[in-house]
Amino acid sequence: MRIAILGGTGEQGPGLALRWAQAGEEVIIGSRQKEKGEKVAIELNQELGKELLRGTDNVTAAAAAEVVVLTVPYSAHVSTLESVKEQLQGKIFVDVSVPLDPENARRVIMPSAGSAAEEAQQVLGSEVKVVGALQNVSAHVLRDINAVIDCDVLVCGSDKDARATVMQLIERLGIHAIDVGPLEAARQIEPITALLIRLNIRHKVHSAGIRLTGLPKR
Amino acid sequence: MRIAILGGTGEQGPGLALRWAQAGEEVIIGSRQKEKGEKVAIELNQELGKELLRGTDNVTAAAAAEVVVLTVPYSAHVSTLESVKEQLQGKIFVDVSVPLDPENARRVIMPSAGSAAEEAQQVLGSEVKVVGALQNVSAHVLRDINAVIDCDVLVCGSDKDARATVMQLIERLGIHAIDVGPLEAARQIEPITALLIRLNIRHKVHSAGIRLTGLPKR
Repeated sequence: MRIAILGGTGEQGPGLALRWAQAGEEVIIGSRQKEKGEKVAIELNQELGKELLRGTDNVTAAAAAEVVVLTVPYSAHVSTLESVKEQLQGKIFVDVSVPLDPENARRVIMPSAGSAAEEAQQVLGSEVKVVGALQNVSAHVLRDINAVIDCDVLVCGSDKDARATVMQLIERLGIHAIDVGPLEAARQIEPITALLIRLNIRHKVHSAGIRLTGLPKR
Repeated sequence: MRIAILGGTGEQGPGLALRWAQAGEEVIIGSRQKEKGEKVAIELNQELGKELLRGTDNVTAAAAAEVVVLTVPYSAHVSTLESVKEQLQGKIFVDVSVPLDPENARRVIMPSAGSAAEEAQQVLGSEVKVVGALQNVSAHVLRDINAVIDCDVLVCGSDKDARATVMQLIERLGIHAIDVGPLEAARQIEPITALLIRLNIRHKVHSAGIRLTGLPKR
Protein backbone atom coordinates (compact mmCIF):
# COMPACT_ATOMS: atom_id res chain seq x y z
CA MET A 1 0.00 0.00 0.00
CA ARG A 2 1.23 3.53 -0.74
CA ILE A 3 1.60 5.38 2.56
CA ALA A 4 2.49 9.07 2.96
CA ILE A 5 3.93 10.16 6.30
CA LEU A 6 3.41 13.90 6.69
CA GLY A 7 5.82 15.53 9.10
CA GLY A 8 7.86 12.44 8.31
CA THR A 9 11.08 14.16 9.31
CA GLY A 10 10.03 14.64 12.95
CA GLU A 11 9.93 12.39 16.02
CA GLN A 12 7.67 9.48 15.08
CA GLY A 13 7.77 9.76 11.29
CA PRO A 14 11.19 8.23 10.52
CA GLY A 15 10.59 5.14 12.71
CA LEU A 16 7.24 4.46 11.06
CA ALA A 17 8.69 5.07 7.59
CA LEU A 18 11.61 2.68 8.12
CA ARG A 19 9.48 -0.05 9.62
CA TRP A 20 6.75 0.10 6.96
CA ALA A 21 9.36 0.21 4.18
CA GLN A 22 11.07 -2.85 5.64
CA ALA A 23 7.70 -4.60 5.76
CA GLY A 24 7.31 -4.02 2.02
CA GLU A 25 4.99 -1.04 1.95
CA GLU A 26 5.64 1.88 -0.39
CA VAL A 27 6.42 4.90 1.80
CA ILE A 28 6.63 8.58 0.87
CA ILE A 29 8.05 10.99 3.45
CA GLY A 30 6.38 14.40 3.40
CA SER A 31 7.77 17.59 4.86
CA ARG A 32 6.80 21.24 4.73
CA GLN A 33 9.86 21.80 2.57
CA LYS A 34 10.45 19.45 -0.36
CA GLU A 35 14.24 19.57 0.13
CA LYS A 36 13.97 18.46 3.74
CA GLY A 37 11.71 15.56 2.80
CA GLU A 38 14.17 14.46 0.11
CA LYS A 39 17.15 14.77 2.46
CA VAL A 40 15.55 12.67 5.21
CA ALA A 41 14.54 10.00 2.68
CA ILE A 42 18.15 9.76 1.48
CA GLU A 43 19.40 9.39 5.08
CA LEU A 44 16.83 6.72 5.91
CA ASN A 45 17.63 4.80 2.70
CA GLN A 46 21.29 4.84 3.74
CA GLU A 47 20.30 3.37 7.09
CA LEU A 48 18.30 0.65 5.32
CA GLY A 49 21.07 0.01 2.78
CA LYS A 50 18.36 0.00 0.10
CA GLU A 51 16.46 2.66 -1.79
CA LEU A 52 13.01 2.00 -0.40
CA LEU A 53 11.79 5.47 0.53
CA ARG A 54 11.29 8.73 -1.27
CA GLY A 55 10.78 12.20 0.13
CA THR A 56 8.95 15.28 -1.06
CA ASP A 57 6.67 18.03 0.24
CA ASN A 58 3.51 17.26 2.25
CA VAL A 59 1.08 18.17 -0.53
CA THR A 60 2.78 16.02 -3.19
CA ALA A 61 3.11 13.14 -0.72
CA ALA A 62 -0.58 13.35 0.29
CA ALA A 63 -1.67 13.50 -3.37
CA ALA A 64 0.33 10.38 -4.27
CA ALA A 65 -0.70 8.12 -1.35
CA GLU A 66 -3.66 5.89 -0.57
CA VAL A 67 -3.21 6.19 3.21
CA VAL A 68 -1.90 9.42 4.74
CA VAL A 69 -0.38 9.47 8.24
CA LEU A 70 0.16 12.71 10.19
CA THR A 71 2.98 12.91 12.74
CA VAL A 72 3.57 16.66 13.15
CA PRO A 73 3.73 18.30 16.59
CA TYR A 74 0.31 19.48 17.72
CA SER A 75 1.20 23.14 17.13
CA ALA A 76 1.23 22.37 13.38
CA HIS A 77 -1.89 20.16 13.43
CA VAL A 78 -4.58 22.38 11.95
CA SER A 79 -2.28 24.25 9.54
CA THR A 80 -0.94 20.99 8.08
CA LEU A 81 -4.45 19.56 7.77
CA GLU A 82 -5.62 22.65 5.89
CA SER A 83 -2.64 22.48 3.54
CA VAL A 84 -3.52 18.93 2.38
CA LYS A 85 -7.32 18.95 2.76
CA GLU A 86 -7.94 18.80 -0.98
CA GLN A 87 -5.49 15.91 -1.52
CA LEU A 88 -7.05 13.84 1.31
CA GLN A 89 -10.63 13.73 0.02
CA GLY A 90 -11.90 10.13 -0.19
CA LYS A 91 -8.74 8.73 1.43
CA ILE A 92 -7.83 7.16 4.76
CA PHE A 93 -6.15 9.64 7.09
CA VAL A 94 -4.35 8.38 10.22
CA ASP A 95 -3.94 11.00 12.94
CA VAL A 96 -1.10 10.27 15.38
CA SER A 97 -1.37 13.75 16.95
CA VAL A 98 -1.76 14.39 20.68
CA PRO A 99 -2.67 17.85 22.02
CA LEU A 100 0.11 17.94 24.63
CA ASP A 101 0.30 21.05 26.79
CA PRO A 102 3.24 22.98 25.26
CA GLU A 103 4.21 24.09 28.78
CA ASN A 104 4.14 20.58 30.27
CA ALA A 105 4.04 17.40 28.17
CA ARG A 106 2.76 15.44 31.17
CA ARG A 107 -0.64 16.99 30.40
CA VAL A 108 -2.98 17.40 27.47
CA ILE A 109 -5.17 20.36 26.61
CA MET A 110 -8.01 18.79 24.65
CA PRO A 111 -9.35 20.88 21.75
CA SER A 112 -12.99 21.95 21.65
CA ALA A 113 -13.75 19.20 19.09
CA GLY A 114 -13.06 16.66 21.89
CA SER A 115 -9.74 15.30 20.61
CA ALA A 116 -7.12 16.01 17.94
CA ALA A 117 -8.60 13.24 15.75
CA GLU A 118 -12.10 14.71 15.94
CA GLU A 119 -10.62 18.13 15.18
CA ALA A 120 -9.03 16.61 12.07
CA GLN A 121 -12.41 15.26 10.99
CA GLN A 122 -13.93 18.74 11.42
CA VAL A 123 -11.18 20.39 9.36
CA LEU A 124 -11.08 17.72 6.63
CA GLY A 125 -14.82 17.16 6.22
CA SER A 126 -16.88 13.98 6.15
CA GLU A 127 -15.40 12.51 2.94
CA VAL A 128 -12.05 11.84 4.61
CA LYS A 129 -11.90 8.59 6.60
CA VAL A 130 -10.15 9.78 9.75
CA VAL A 131 -8.60 7.10 12.00
CA GLY A 132 -6.81 7.76 15.30
CA ALA A 133 -3.89 5.38 15.95
CA LEU A 134 -0.27 5.00 17.07
CA GLN A 135 -0.41 7.95 19.51
CA ASN A 136 0.81 5.81 22.43
CA VAL A 137 3.83 4.13 20.83
CA SER A 138 7.19 5.33 22.11
CA ALA A 139 8.91 7.37 19.34
CA HIS A 140 12.22 6.26 20.83
CA VAL A 141 11.44 2.54 20.49
CA LEU A 142 9.88 3.05 17.06
CA ARG A 143 13.01 4.79 15.78
CA ASP A 144 15.35 1.97 16.88
CA ILE A 145 14.42 -0.39 14.07
CA ASN A 146 15.96 -3.39 15.83
CA ALA A 147 13.88 -2.86 18.98
CA VAL A 148 10.82 -5.02 19.58
CA ILE A 149 7.73 -2.88 20.13
CA ASP A 150 6.21 -4.12 23.38
CA CYS A 151 2.83 -2.39 23.40
CA ASP A 152 -0.60 -2.50 21.79
CA VAL A 153 -2.04 0.14 19.46
CA LEU A 154 -5.59 1.36 19.98
CA VAL A 155 -7.41 2.18 16.75
CA CYS A 156 -10.53 4.34 16.50
CA GLY A 157 -12.42 5.85 13.60
CA SER A 158 -15.94 6.15 12.36
CA ASP A 159 -15.41 4.15 9.13
CA LYS A 160 -15.17 0.45 9.94
CA ASP A 161 -13.34 -0.54 6.74
CA ALA A 162 -10.81 2.27 7.21
CA ARG A 163 -10.20 1.05 10.79
CA ALA A 164 -9.64 -2.48 9.47
CA THR A 165 -7.16 -1.28 6.83
CA VAL A 166 -5.18 0.72 9.39
CA MET A 167 -5.20 -2.23 11.83
CA GLN A 168 -3.69 -4.41 9.09
CA LEU A 169 -0.99 -1.81 8.42
CA ILE A 170 -0.17 -1.73 12.14
CA GLU A 171 0.00 -5.52 12.32
CA ARG A 172 2.52 -5.32 9.44
CA LEU A 173 4.78 -3.52 11.94
CA GLY A 174 4.49 -6.52 14.29
CA ILE A 175 2.26 -4.56 16.66
CA HIS A 176 -1.04 -5.86 17.98
CA ALA A 177 -3.86 -3.48 17.00
CA ILE A 178 -7.07 -3.24 19.02
CA ASP A 179 -10.37 -1.96 17.62
CA VAL A 180 -11.81 0.66 19.98
CA GLY A 181 -14.68 1.77 17.73
CA PRO A 182 -15.74 5.31 16.85
CA LEU A 183 -13.44 8.30 16.51
CA GLU A 184 -14.56 9.89 19.78
CA ALA A 185 -12.61 7.19 21.64
CA ALA A 186 -9.60 9.38 20.78
CA ARG A 187 -10.70 11.48 23.76
CA GLN A 188 -9.49 8.71 26.04
CA ILE A 189 -6.61 7.44 23.87
CA GLU A 190 -4.75 10.73 23.32
CA PRO A 191 -4.35 11.58 27.06
CA ILE A 192 -2.59 8.22 27.60
CA THR A 193 0.42 9.67 25.76
CA ALA A 194 0.77 12.35 28.44
CA LEU A 195 0.56 9.61 31.09
CA LEU A 196 3.33 7.65 29.35
CA ILE A 197 5.52 10.78 29.09
CA ARG A 198 4.91 11.30 32.81
CA LEU A 199 5.99 7.71 33.53
CA ASN A 200 9.05 8.03 31.24
CA ILE A 201 10.22 11.14 33.10
CA ARG A 202 9.53 9.65 36.54
CA HIS A 203 11.13 6.27 35.83
CA LYS A 204 13.96 7.67 33.64
CA VAL A 205 13.17 5.65 30.51
CA HIS A 206 11.89 6.42 26.98
CA SER A 207 9.96 3.24 26.46
CA ALA A 208 6.74 3.28 28.52
CA GLY A 209 3.78 1.76 26.71
CA ILE A 210 0.45 0.10 27.38
CA ARG A 211 -0.99 -3.31 26.75
CA LEU A 212 -4.64 -4.22 27.08
CA THR A 213 -5.65 -7.30 29.07
CA GLY A 214 -8.90 -9.17 29.52
CA LEU A 215 -10.00 -8.94 25.87
CA PRO A 216 -10.93 -11.98 23.75
CA LYS A 217 -8.01 -13.63 21.98
CA ARG A 218 -8.06 -13.19 18.23
CA MET B 1 -3.90 -2.07 58.64
CA ARG B 2 -7.41 -0.88 59.36
CA ILE B 3 -9.13 -0.02 56.06
CA ALA B 4 -12.59 1.53 55.68
CA ILE B 5 -14.33 1.08 52.35
CA LEU B 6 -16.97 3.76 51.97
CA GLY B 7 -19.71 2.88 49.56
CA GLY B 8 -18.54 -0.64 50.33
CA THR B 9 -21.87 -2.12 49.32
CA GLY B 10 -21.59 -0.98 45.69
CA GLU B 11 -19.77 -2.27 42.62
CA GLN B 12 -16.09 -2.29 43.55
CA GLY B 13 -16.35 -2.20 47.34
CA PRO B 14 -17.24 -5.84 48.11
CA GLY B 15 -14.44 -7.25 45.92
CA LEU B 16 -11.85 -5.02 47.57
CA ALA B 17 -13.21 -5.81 51.02
CA LEU B 18 -13.12 -9.57 50.49
CA ARG B 19 -9.64 -9.56 48.99
CA TRP B 20 -8.10 -7.31 51.64
CA ALA B 21 -9.78 -9.32 54.42
CA GLN B 22 -8.41 -12.54 52.95
CA ALA B 23 -4.95 -10.95 52.83
CA GLY B 24 -5.15 -10.31 56.57
CA GLU B 25 -6.10 -6.63 56.65
CA GLU B 26 -8.83 -5.37 58.99
CA VAL B 27 -11.70 -4.15 56.82
CA ILE B 28 -14.73 -2.06 57.76
CA ILE B 29 -17.51 -1.69 55.21
CA GLY B 30 -19.19 1.71 55.25
CA SER B 31 -22.57 2.56 53.80
CA ARG B 32 -24.84 5.58 53.91
CA GLN B 33 -27.16 3.50 56.09
CA LYS B 34 -25.64 1.58 58.99
CA GLU B 35 -28.08 -1.34 58.51
CA LYS B 36 -27.04 -1.80 54.90
CA GLY B 37 -23.36 -1.79 55.84
CA GLU B 38 -24.00 -4.42 58.53
CA LYS B 39 -26.08 -6.57 56.17
CA VAL B 40 -23.44 -6.60 53.42
CA ALA B 41 -20.69 -7.42 55.93
CA ILE B 42 -22.70 -10.43 57.12
CA GLU B 43 -23.20 -11.64 53.54
CA LEU B 44 -19.50 -11.23 52.69
CA ASN B 45 -18.47 -13.05 55.90
CA GLN B 46 -20.74 -15.92 54.87
CA GLU B 47 -18.98 -16.02 51.50
CA LEU B 48 -15.61 -16.12 53.27
CA GLY B 49 -16.79 -18.72 55.80
CA LYS B 50 -15.13 -16.57 58.49
CA GLU B 51 -16.10 -13.44 60.38
CA LEU B 52 -13.43 -11.13 59.02
CA LEU B 53 -15.44 -8.04 58.08
CA ARG B 54 -17.71 -5.66 59.90
CA GLY B 55 -20.12 -3.13 58.50
CA THR B 56 -21.45 0.21 59.71
CA ASP B 57 -22.24 3.70 58.41
CA ASN B 58 -19.69 5.73 56.41
CA VAL B 59 -18.93 8.20 59.21
CA THR B 60 -18.26 5.53 61.84
CA ALA B 61 -16.17 3.52 59.37
CA ALA B 62 -14.09 6.57 58.39
CA ALA B 63 -13.52 7.50 62.03
CA ALA B 64 -12.30 3.98 62.92
CA ALA B 65 -9.88 3.45 60.01
CA GLU B 66 -6.29 4.42 59.21
CA VAL B 67 -6.82 4.28 55.45
CA VAL B 68 -10.17 5.21 53.93
CA VAL B 69 -11.16 4.07 50.42
CA LEU B 70 -14.05 5.63 48.48
CA THR B 71 -15.92 3.52 45.91
CA VAL B 72 -19.24 5.35 45.53
CA PRO B 73 -20.67 6.25 42.09
CA TYR B 74 -19.49 9.67 40.98
CA SER B 75 -22.93 11.21 41.57
CA ALA B 76 -22.34 10.71 45.34
CA HIS B 77 -18.68 11.81 45.27
CA VAL B 78 -18.80 15.30 46.76
CA SER B 79 -21.68 14.62 49.18
CA THR B 80 -19.92 11.56 50.63
CA LEU B 81 -16.63 13.46 50.94
CA GLU B 82 -18.37 16.27 52.82
CA SER B 83 -20.06 13.79 55.16
CA VAL B 84 -16.70 12.33 56.32
CA LYS B 85 -14.41 15.32 55.92
CA GLU B 86 -13.90 15.70 59.68
CA GLN B 87 -13.11 12.00 60.20
CA LEU B 88 -10.52 11.98 57.37
CA GLN B 89 -8.24 14.75 58.67
CA GLY B 90 -4.62 13.55 58.87
CA LYS B 91 -5.44 10.20 57.23
CA ILE B 92 -4.75 8.53 53.90
CA PHE B 93 -7.75 8.73 51.59
CA VAL B 94 -7.87 6.57 48.45
CA ASP B 95 -10.19 7.83 45.74
CA VAL B 96 -11.36 5.15 43.30
CA SER B 97 -13.94 7.49 41.73
CA VAL B 98 -14.22 8.21 38.02
CA PRO B 99 -16.41 11.05 36.70
CA LEU B 100 -18.19 8.93 34.07
CA ASP B 101 -20.76 10.68 31.92
CA PRO B 102 -24.10 9.52 33.46
CA GLU B 103 -25.59 9.44 29.95
CA ASN B 104 -22.77 7.36 28.45
CA ALA B 105 -20.19 5.48 30.54
CA ARG B 106 -17.87 5.32 27.52
CA ARG B 107 -17.01 8.94 28.30
CA VAL B 108 -15.89 11.04 31.24
CA ILE B 109 -16.88 14.59 32.13
CA MET B 110 -13.89 15.86 34.06
CA PRO B 111 -14.72 18.18 36.99
CA SER B 112 -13.33 21.73 37.10
CA ALA B 113 -10.68 20.63 39.64
CA GLY B 114 -9.11 18.55 36.83
CA SER B 115 -10.06 15.08 38.10
CA ALA B 116 -12.22 13.43 40.77
CA ALA B 117 -9.13 12.89 42.94
CA GLU B 118 -8.15 16.57 42.77
CA GLU B 119 -11.74 17.50 43.54
CA ALA B 120 -11.52 15.29 46.65
CA GLN B 121 -8.37 17.14 47.72
CA GLN B 122 -10.20 20.46 47.31
CA VAL B 123 -13.17 19.29 49.37
CA LEU B 124 -11.12 17.57 52.09
CA GLY B 125 -8.38 20.19 52.49
CA SER B 126 -4.61 19.89 52.57
CA GLU B 127 -4.38 17.79 55.77
CA VAL B 128 -5.87 14.73 54.08
CA LYS B 129 -3.40 12.64 52.07
CA VAL B 130 -5.41 11.99 48.93
CA VAL B 131 -4.26 9.13 46.68
CA GLY B 132 -5.88 8.13 43.38
CA ALA B 133 -5.78 4.37 42.71
CA LEU B 134 -7.70 1.28 41.57
CA GLN B 135 -9.94 3.20 39.14
CA ASN B 136 -9.02 0.95 36.21
CA VAL B 137 -9.54 -2.47 37.80
CA SER B 138 -12.54 -4.41 36.51
CA ALA B 139 -15.18 -4.54 39.28
CA HIS B 140 -16.34 -7.84 37.78
CA VAL B 141 -12.92 -9.49 38.10
CA LEU B 142 -12.37 -7.96 41.55
CA ARG B 143 -15.67 -9.37 42.80
CA ASP B 144 -14.85 -12.95 41.72
CA ILE B 145 -12.41 -13.66 44.51
CA ASN B 146 -11.00 -16.71 42.74
CA ALA B 147 -10.15 -14.73 39.60
CA VAL B 148 -6.57 -13.63 38.99
CA ILE B 149 -6.36 -9.87 38.46
CA ASP B 150 -4.46 -9.39 35.20
CA CYS B 151 -3.75 -5.67 35.20
CA ASP B 152 -1.58 -3.03 36.82
CA VAL B 153 -2.77 -0.30 39.17
CA LEU B 154 -1.56 3.27 38.65
CA VAL B 155 -1.11 5.19 41.90
CA CYS B 156 -0.89 8.98 42.17
CA GLY B 157 -0.94 11.41 45.07
CA SER B 158 0.99 14.37 46.32
CA ASP B 159 2.26 12.71 49.53
CA LYS B 160 5.04 10.26 48.71
CA ASP B 161 4.70 8.18 51.90
CA ALA B 162 0.94 7.91 51.43
CA ARG B 163 1.51 6.70 47.86
CA ALA B 164 3.97 4.10 49.15
CA THR B 165 1.51 2.85 51.79
CA VAL B 166 -1.27 2.52 49.24
CA MET B 167 1.05 0.76 46.79
CA GLN B 168 1.86 -1.79 49.52
CA LEU B 169 -1.84 -2.36 50.19
CA ILE B 170 -2.42 -2.93 46.48
CA GLU B 171 0.48 -5.38 46.27
CA ARG B 172 -1.23 -7.27 49.15
CA LEU B 173 -4.03 -7.96 46.65
CA GLY B 174 -1.50 -9.55 44.30
CA ILE B 175 -1.69 -6.57 41.94
CA HIS B 176 1.37 -4.75 40.62
CA ALA B 177 1.21 -1.07 41.62
CA ILE B 178 2.98 1.63 39.60
CA ASP B 179 3.99 5.02 41.01
CA VAL B 180 2.78 7.77 38.67
CA GLY B 181 3.66 10.71 40.93
CA PRO B 182 1.52 13.72 41.83
CA LEU B 183 -2.25 13.72 42.17
CA GLU B 184 -2.83 15.59 38.92
CA ALA B 185 -1.90 12.40 37.04
CA ALA B 186 -5.46 11.35 37.89
CA ARG B 187 -6.46 13.53 34.92
CA GLN B 188 -5.01 10.88 32.65
CA ILE B 189 -5.77 7.83 34.79
CA GLU B 190 -9.51 8.36 35.36
CA PRO B 191 -10.43 8.58 31.63
CA ILE B 192 -8.86 5.14 31.07
CA THR B 193 -11.85 3.64 32.91
CA ALA B 194 -14.17 5.01 30.22
CA LEU B 195 -11.88 3.51 27.58
CA LEU B 196 -12.02 0.10 29.30
CA ILE B 197 -15.83 0.29 29.56
CA ARG B 198 -15.90 1.10 25.83
CA LEU B 199 -13.71 -1.94 25.11
CA ASN B 200 -15.82 -4.17 27.40
CA ILE B 201 -19.01 -3.19 25.54
CA ARG B 202 -17.42 -3.54 22.09
CA HIS B 203 -15.72 -6.88 22.78
CA LYS B 204 -18.55 -8.28 24.96
CA VAL B 205 -16.46 -8.90 28.10
CA HIS B 206 -16.27 -7.43 31.62
CA SER B 207 -12.58 -7.85 32.16
CA ALA B 208 -10.66 -5.27 30.09
CA GLY B 209 -7.65 -3.86 31.90
CA ILE B 210 -4.29 -2.25 31.23
CA ARG B 211 -0.69 -3.19 31.87
CA LEU B 212 2.24 -0.84 31.53
CA THR B 213 5.29 -1.93 29.53
CA GLY B 214 8.77 -0.51 29.07
CA LEU B 215 9.27 0.50 32.71
CA PRO B 216 12.25 -0.61 34.83
CA LYS B 217 11.76 -3.93 36.62
CA ARG B 218 11.52 -3.57 40.36
